[in-house]
Amino acid sequence: MTIITGGLGPTHDDITKPALVKFFGDKLITDEKVLEHVKNIFSSRNLRMPEVNSGQALVPYGSKVIWNANGTAPGIWMEKNDKVFIAMPGVPFEMKPMFDNEILPLLRKKFSGQIKKILLQKTFLTTGIGESTLSEMLGDIKELTGESKLAFLPSSVGVRLRVNVAGKNENEAGEKLKEIEYKIIAKAGEYVYGINDDELEKVIGDILRRRKMTLSVAESCTGGMISSKIVSIAGSSDYYAGGICSYSNKEKISLLKVSEATLIKYGAVSEETAMEMAKGVRELMQTDYAISTTGIAGPSGGSEEKPVGLVWIGFSDKEKTYAKDFLFGDNRERNIQRASQRALEILRRELLNLQIKF
Amino acid sequence: MTIITGGLGPTHDDITKPALVKFFGDKLITDEKVLEHVKNIFSSRNLRMPEVNSGQALVPYGSKVIWNANGTAPGIWMEKNDKVFIAMPGVPFEMKPMFDNEILPLLRKKFSGQIKKILLQKTFLTTGIGESTLSEMLGDIKELTGESKLAFLPSSVGVRLRVNVAGKNENEAGEKLKEIEYKIIAKAGEYVYGINDDELEKVIGDILRRRKMTLSVAESCTGGMISSKIVSIAGSSDYYAGGICSYSNKEKISLLKVSEATLIKYGAVSEETAMEMAKGVRELMQTDYAISTTGIAGPSGGSEEKPVGLVWIGFSDKEKTYAKDFLFGDNRERNIQRASQRALEILRRELLNLQIKF
Repeated sequence: MTIITGGLGPTHDDITKPALVKFFGDKLITDEKVLEHVKNIFSSRNLRMPEVNSGQALVPYGSKVIWNANGTAPGIWMEKNDKVFIAMPGVPFEMKPMFDNEILPLLRKKFSGQIKKILLQKTFLTTGIGESTLSEMLGDIKELTGESKLAFLPSSVGVRLRVNVAGKNENEAGEKLKEIEYKIIAKAGEYVYGINDDELEKVIGDILRRRKMTLSVAESCTGGMISSKIVSIAGSSDYYAGGICSYSNKEKISLLKVSEATLIKYGAVSEETAMEMAKGVRELMQTDYAISTTGIAGPSGGSEEKPVGLVWIGFSDKEKTYAKDFLFGDNRERNIQRASQRALEILRRELLNLQIKF
Repeated sequence: MTIITGGLGPTHDDITKPALVKFFGDKLITDEKVLEHVKNIFSSRNLRMPEVNSGQALVPYGSKVIWNANGTAPGIWMEKNDKVFIAMPGVPFEMKPMFDNEILPLLRKKFSGQIKKILLQKTFLTTGIGESTLSEMLGDIKELTGESKLAFLPSSVGVRLRVNVAGKNENEAGEKLKEIEYKIIAKAGEYVYGINDDELEKVIGDILRRRKMTLSVAESCTGGMISSKIVSIAGSSDYYAGGICSYSNKEKISLLKVSEATLIKYGAVSEETAMEMAKGVRELMQTDYAISTTGIAGPSGGSEEKPVGLVWIGFSDKEKTYAKDFLFGDNRERNIQRASQRALEILRRELLNLQIKF
């Protein structure tokens, strides 16, 4: 079986289909259903369809056309001499759902009699702990996983633990996986905020919605990143009131009611300012919870006392308001990412009554 | 020459270095400079160094250690029988700068006498125009590029045009590239907002800073994405006052002074609301320019009259306030991305006195 991606679009450099028919000695024919789909996409957006797009509906004679729910270029499934040949569009948001929803079920059906081994994979998402500390916490890996595989996948917002197990059938593999999962959760469970594709902002949102609680944010150094993460989750309007990105002191004073005396005495990047920002936005938007950030994202703007990478994160609910400081690195983008993730993780730990350990 | 990435970290699954010394029959020795660097990284963040990290300083005997400015794992450069073997860390933000700043200069020096052909690449970044319309606008591609290559690289925020030319020397390749560039700019220049790694938000920021003008944003459906993009640029505090993410009507009324009558008569997703949001945030933060978004990001919340994907983008400066509507697709993430990019592109066109064509 061969799977290729890309080159199915309408422009001159899209040569996958001509190459396929040349290789297999076939011809391209127009698929009327695809043509109509392409026309619909343009007309539903009130756009004229450029002539070149009618070429999107050309498919190799005798091939199976694979539905593209997210774009104009169809996928192609060809079988020759008992071999399967699949072409998918290269744009990730077209290719990925096509593979999951169309190709995978077809492959399962086609090869169902030939399965000798089942592979299962599960990824545990951690944040607030480094790769090597996490490794120490899990102890001897051989003992933890046996012949299964455990990979540490670090990024700037956390470490993913990816477990791969193999078994003769779904049941055997599932049992092995479950045993490893119990061990990981027992040893490092408090750092695990989710599984596989979970998102921290979705985990938090689900809790807030269930409890009918509301959230607001006040951001300085993270500049809207936290708000943007929260809003990326469908249905976030159920619990999210909104956010203030107070990038200048003026807005901190006028909107968030941070006192001018605080800014003069302690500075914008301080425990006191972070606390007043969190409390200020919570009262302004009348929400149950609020988080805030103020820091020096870099690359410049640091001093000996307040170096680049210093971030204060504030939390406020009806009972308490506090702030914690973090010292990240010197890369602006990563500092913003890490501060956003830490702020959300502080909120998660508050919602679940977990100790804030970092 | 062989270049590999990944597996240089401190955990059990990092097996690149053991594999290298096994293959070449060498031994691992401790590099004191690297050990000190790793210790410094932990101590500068007030963290205890887990014991496992001292292994990061082990390098194959006789290899050249490549400096990792952004992490603990060093790169490794080995030469055997006139062949070069390079191992770099896999984490992108460690690997990319290491390649650009350390590896590439070494490779240039090592192979300087053997260069027979020069390849040049330049990418033109467009937004606000689809792949196929852009292709029509550029006309016959063979005529445009001759034997050089032009690739159309679409994403949800625009189409990149990547040109590759080859020449016997830098001069010849440069001349070819320049000719193609002139043609592209002549035909589609108004859609080109930048070159190679340029970012729309940086292009805008540079103009604002030069003119000593200021900006604020009011976001509903984009939820902080525009603010976050603006703040991702170092030095944005020179021109960016801040943003309001007014995710509920309450904040639109209380903070942005959108009139309740407007919300009742036209709804939150309307031309009138987008205009009042833009004007409201501009007056609130006393900036020269403001942009706003209000729309239905999806996947639910649409109606026949106002379907998912409908977004109104507002613009306001001292002379005028207006809003334009867009109908994007049904994918929440892409709708947010595309609305953010369009809002920034409207601002760019206003700053440069270009017609708003989309």
